[in-house]
Amino acid sequence: MGGIIKTADWQEMTTALEASPLGPLLNNIVRSHRPLQKAGSVPANIPFLAEVPFDKFGIAVATTSGQVYRSGDADVPFSIQSISKVFTLAMALQGDPAGRLWSRVLREPSGTAFNSLVQLEVEHGVPRNPFINAGALVVTDHLMEGTPDAAKQLLRFLTAEAGSSGPFINEEAASSELLGSNRNLALAHFLKDFGNLKQTAQSVVQNYVRQCSIMMTCVELAQAGLFLAREGRGRLGRILSPSDAKRIGSIMLTCGMYDAAGEFAYRVGLPGKSGVGGGILVIVPGVCSICVWSPRLDAKGNSLAGTAALADLSDRTGWSVF
Amino acid sequence: MGGIIKTADWQEMTTALEASPLGPLLNNIVRSHRPLQKAGSVPANIPFLAEVPFDKFGIAVATTSGQVYRSGDADVPFSIQSISKVFTLAMALQGDPAGRLWSRVLREPSGTAFNSLVQLEVEHGVPRNPFINAGALVVTDHLMEGTPDAAKQLLRFLTAEAGSSGPFINEEAASSELLGSNRNLALAHFLKDFGNLKQTAQSVVQNYVRQCSIMMTCVELAQAGLFLAREGRGRLGRILSPSDAKRIGSIMLTCGMYDAAGEFAYRVGLPGKSGVGGGILVIVPGVCSICVWSPRLDAKGNSLAGTAALADLSDRTGWSVF
Amino acid sequence: MGGIIKTADWQEMTTALEASPLGPLLNNIVRSHRPLQKAGSVPANIPFLAEVPFDKFGIAVATTSGQVYRSGDADVPFSIQSISKVFTLAMALQGDPAGRLWSRVLREPSGTAFNSLVQLEVEHGVPRNPFINAGALVVTDHLMEGTPDAAKQLLRFLTAEAGSSGPFINEEAASSELLGSNRNLALAHFLKDFGNLKQTAQSVVQNYVRQCSIMMTCVELAQAGLFLAREGRGRLGRILSPSDAKRIGSIMLTCGMYDAAGEFAYRVGLPGKSGVGGGILVIVPGVCSICVWSPRLDAKGNSLAGTAALADLSDRTGWSVF
Amino acid sequence: MGGIIKTADWQEMTTALEASPLGPLLNNIVRSHRPLQKAGSVPANIPFLAEVPFDKFGIAVATTSGQVYRSGDADVPFSIQSISKVFTLAMALQGDPAGRLWSRVLREPSGTAFNSLVQLEVEHGVPRNPFINAGALVVTDHLMEGTPDAAKQLLRFLTAEAGSSGPFINEEAASSELLGSNRNLALAHFLKDFGNLKQTAQSVVQNYVRQCSIMMTCVELAQAGLFLAREGRGRLGRILSPSDAKRIGSIMLTCGMYDAAGEFAYRVGLPGKSGVGGGILVIVPGVCSICVWSPRLDAKGNSLAGTAALADLSDRTGWSVF
Repeated sequence: MGGIIKTADWQEMTTALEASPLGPLLNNIVRSHRPLQKAGSVPANIPFLAEVPFDKFGIAVATTSGQVYRSGDADVPFSIQSISKVFTLAMALQGDPAGRLWSRVLREPSGTAFNSLVQLEVEHGVPRNPFINAGALVVTDHLMEGTPDAAKQLLRFLTAEAGSSGPFINEEAASSELLGSNRNLALAHFLKDFGNLKQTAQSVVQNYVRQCSIMMTCVELAQAGLFLAREGRGRLGRILSPSDAKRIGSIMLTCGMYDAAGEFAYRVGLPGKSGVGGGILVIVPGVCSICVWSPRLDAKGNSLAGTAALADLSDRTGWSVF
Repeated sequence: MGGIIKTADWQEMTTALEASPLGPLLNNIVRSHRPLQKAGSVPANIPFLAEVPFDKFGIAVATTSGQVYRSGDADVPFSIQSISKVFTLAMALQGDPAGRLWSRVLREPSGTAFNSLVQLEVEHGVPRNPFINAGALVVTDHLMEGTPDAAKQLLRFLTAEAGSSGPFINEEAASSELLGSNRNLALAHFLKDFGNLKQTAQSVVQNYVRQCSIMMTCVELAQAGLFLAREGRGRLGRILSPSDAKRIGSIMLTCGMYDAAGEFAYRVGLPGKSGVGGGILVIVPGVCSICVWSPRLDAKGNSLAGTAALADLSDRTGWSVF
Repeated sequence: MGGIIKTADWQEMTTALEASPLGPLLNNIVRSHRPLQKAGSVPANIPFLAEVPFDKFGIAVATTSGQVYRSGDADVPFSIQSISKVFTLAMALQGDPAGRLWSRVLREPSGTAFNSLVQLEVEHGVPRNPFINAGALVVTDHLMEGTPDAAKQLLRFLTAEAGSSGPFINEEAASSELLGSNRNLALAHFLKDFGNLKQTAQSVVQNYVRQCSIMMTCVELAQAGLFLAREGRGRLGRILSPSDAKRIGSIMLTCGMYDAAGEFAYRVGLPGKSGVGGGILVIVPGVCSICVWSPRLDAKGNSLAGTAALADLSDRTGWSVF
Repeated sequence: MGGIIKTADWQEMTTALEASPLGPLLNNIVRSHRPLQKAGSVPANIPFLAEVPFDKFGIAVATTSGQVYRSGDADVPFSIQSISKVFTLAMALQGDPAGRLWSRVLREPSGTAFNSLVQLEVEHGVPRNPFINAGALVVTDHLMEGTPDAAKQLLRFLTAEAGSSGPFINEEAASSELLGSNRNLALAHFLKDFGNLKQTAQSVVQNYVRQCSIMMTCVELAQAGLFLAREGRGRLGRILSPSDAKRIGSIMLTCGMYDAAGEFAYRVGLPGKSGVGGGILVIVPGVCSICVWSPRLDAKGNSLAGTAALADLSDRTGWSVF
């Protein structure tokens, strides 16, 4: 950066954090938000997600100073689904200093459902952002140019950054999910028709579904995402430039929660990315990375208990970018 | 707030600010970004905006510690246009502790042009957010319930917060702009048809246009917007609760730049609101409020030189919420 | 035409008609289709239409050879509503040999609701056809250029062609309907914004609503529409060229029944135009003009009993253009 | 039908036809409309169509009394493309007395391009009519339930009705066209996602493309379509009930010319179906079936010279359903 004025003093904040009763607070959050009865929904087209017990609830916080706080089912692996999009975007930007990706996908909120084909038709095959499905398919296609098995590459990235050998691709779940992927296949063929896909539609969707089927715990995801709170510096060295790290934060804030990005920014005030597996990854720039998980979803496809828990946590810690 | 952990230490930051060479930096920004030739466009339906010289460029920064920095045409009044929407929203929330307004307008990015009727039809008359025209008309209607001359009320608010008797309604410009307001009249009648307008369509549009026709300088606007950087505390006392102030910031970030909100968040990383008069108001939470002005617009309706200047300023100061 | 081959021998057909038991058939149609209980709906935004007894049912057939057959409430005046669009289009074409109107309105089915603004935005202010509301407003605007009181002009036309002094503008109903015309005002202002309206939006909508509020009986409407079955020849002389008369028929067939034009063409197979007052005017080219009326509407806004009666009549007479 | 009144006297008309100078008229049409220079376009995604010489022009008329008139390149085989949709619909209705197909596809004009996904999303996977691509894929899927090789079945049907062994599937062209079928694959996967496709998306598109790749001459197509002018009676016996035959006519008139159905009804006034191979099949109920072919297309995808020739022919013969 080299900015002449700093907005945040990490040292000051992480000191506050260490002294803070964050452990007890997370326990309290778990007690308040763990679902007591079946509410919300599970995605109709991914059968195995329906089998996860409705009362699972976990939360983990990884701080920029190296602490990890956890509570509830923070060590139970779940399907990361669309949270993978944050990491594939980071990987794509890593290998793309010239920004070629940005000629194939925009950075604007979509105002429509994550799997809508309407906007794609109106905008002639250029997806609105990398976090709607059409955009993520383009990112996957971009990655596959360099590494055909982009899902395996993502797994290596996540394993390294999580500092854990826990993450794995649930290949059986992926095969099952692929059977319900007609909407994604429609999007992929549509992109192909517009000339915005280089691999075959089938192979891109298959790879994308395998990325979504990676299983991780809250603790692992919070740690893997920490580089976004650390201006791009990962566990083993720089992953992204500070400006690219910030920019992923901005895309998370404006586009990360499907068609509820505005509502989430309003209630939580932090960059976040959710998945239909019930996980949400949230970044507090300069402070920490948070992962919350509870499987039941609201009408927009975001974790019901997870969103409520993050709003509560934001209120009680003052964490907000605004 | 009462948060157990703080994200920002204002004292620390404003100290940095006072010591900073902000004045010279602004001068440098003006030198770099003042347009040398006619580029960009002016709004076709507001004739008097076309008459403003293309090479006008001003910038002002009002800090939370009370300093004001200015450079270029920072004391030349211009038409605030849609920047008014930030202030009418604040006024509406001020008088609406029960949040009735939020049943009439959403808080999501729109993904379409600011004056589109399409989404309004699809969403049955509930505008996507208060910063697209349809949403601002609902906010105006809400204000007019309490005070029929909401534009005059807005002027009083702006005068008080700017600490200046300078702001005025350019009634002649408003009358002229009203003649080109068929799109807004269409939106208003459409809202009325959906039962989401209490006053007549005609009176709401008329009042809205008068709000847009308020003339202010960069310095005045920066000062008037400072309460958003001060957790809701205005010149004369609290205007909004800290959480409402933050929430306006979140709506600015996700919806403040027409259909370029994502791009602006990506390049500048700060909550902003632009107007087709060429002004942009930007908030650095806890630090300062910035107003930049240059009349020529890009394809999305945002000041061409203003946006570039803010991206530059953000890079050089490190100011970003991400 | 001067065509070398004729598709229909009127003499032969009208002979058949005169010998036919058409009177008893119409009586039978009335017995079979007069509603026995309240089913269907009435338009929410036009209160006075809700007061018409649900069990009204009338039918009239005016033949090209001069006979008139009637049954049921064929002499009860009702609000012609959108059936007026057929006649205003004819009047507009009458005074427009150069076809200037067709640069302002298309002739394609719309595929959306009759009062949708979506397609108008996508197609930049050029309505899809003269029978959706936006298109009818353009036709009205076109007529008002020559005769400011186009509604009165329409009344004169209808009175002359109906051969009856019965038709009148229900001015009280028009005033009441105008209060619920926000959607039409939205459309008109939208058209104005696109430069496709010359008069004020207010005056065009007012005139349009008065056209819709004309009261006529089935017998009067069947007679007034007869020129369309007679290649453009009206009671007092030629109204339209044969080709313009045919072309109105083609627009009726493809666009005359709101978003159920295809279904009506499929079931009835004749050019028709319905109104939310419950009337439907149908043309059997070379043979006769039919008007049926029953006030309750189906989900698409067409008379429930009227549509069923016409399908029955078409089956039993073999009348169909296909 | 058993109608008490007849709209057309075939005997009278076909007599007129036999006496008519139809042969010379067709020669004249060919002289007037055969393209003298390259104008119009060829479909970008079907390379082999681009190779057809631009100046090809043929026309054939098969009358209900058994005559066949031809002129120009009326015996040159061309790719029937979407004209196949008329025949697959007839075959589907033939085997579907209960009308199950109509729960899967509507009969309304679409108001959007033939390959648009937008309306399909808005209407939840039920295509607007059988002649847009999405609808034709549903019809193909319906046929494949009974006969997996529906394209071969169609070929048999066409061969029998054309009374010629000429028609053949251009399998090489089909394979090539399949490579450019991403839009159709997107539609098929989208339909599958909505549960409106029983076979695999891949197999339905493959079969559909083979149907489109059938090669026939104008004479063969005119003869094959004659049953639609003969109330459903084909060469070897009844194919459809009179009402189903009429109904296909109504769908052709309202939906047969892509997004120019209204314009074609207006100019030509006859039920027609075009294909991007440059052919147009037109029905004059009770009189004849017409096929015209010229390879270059207008902006809506209909044969440029073919449409003009049919408008001319309609004017000069008086053939029109209106």
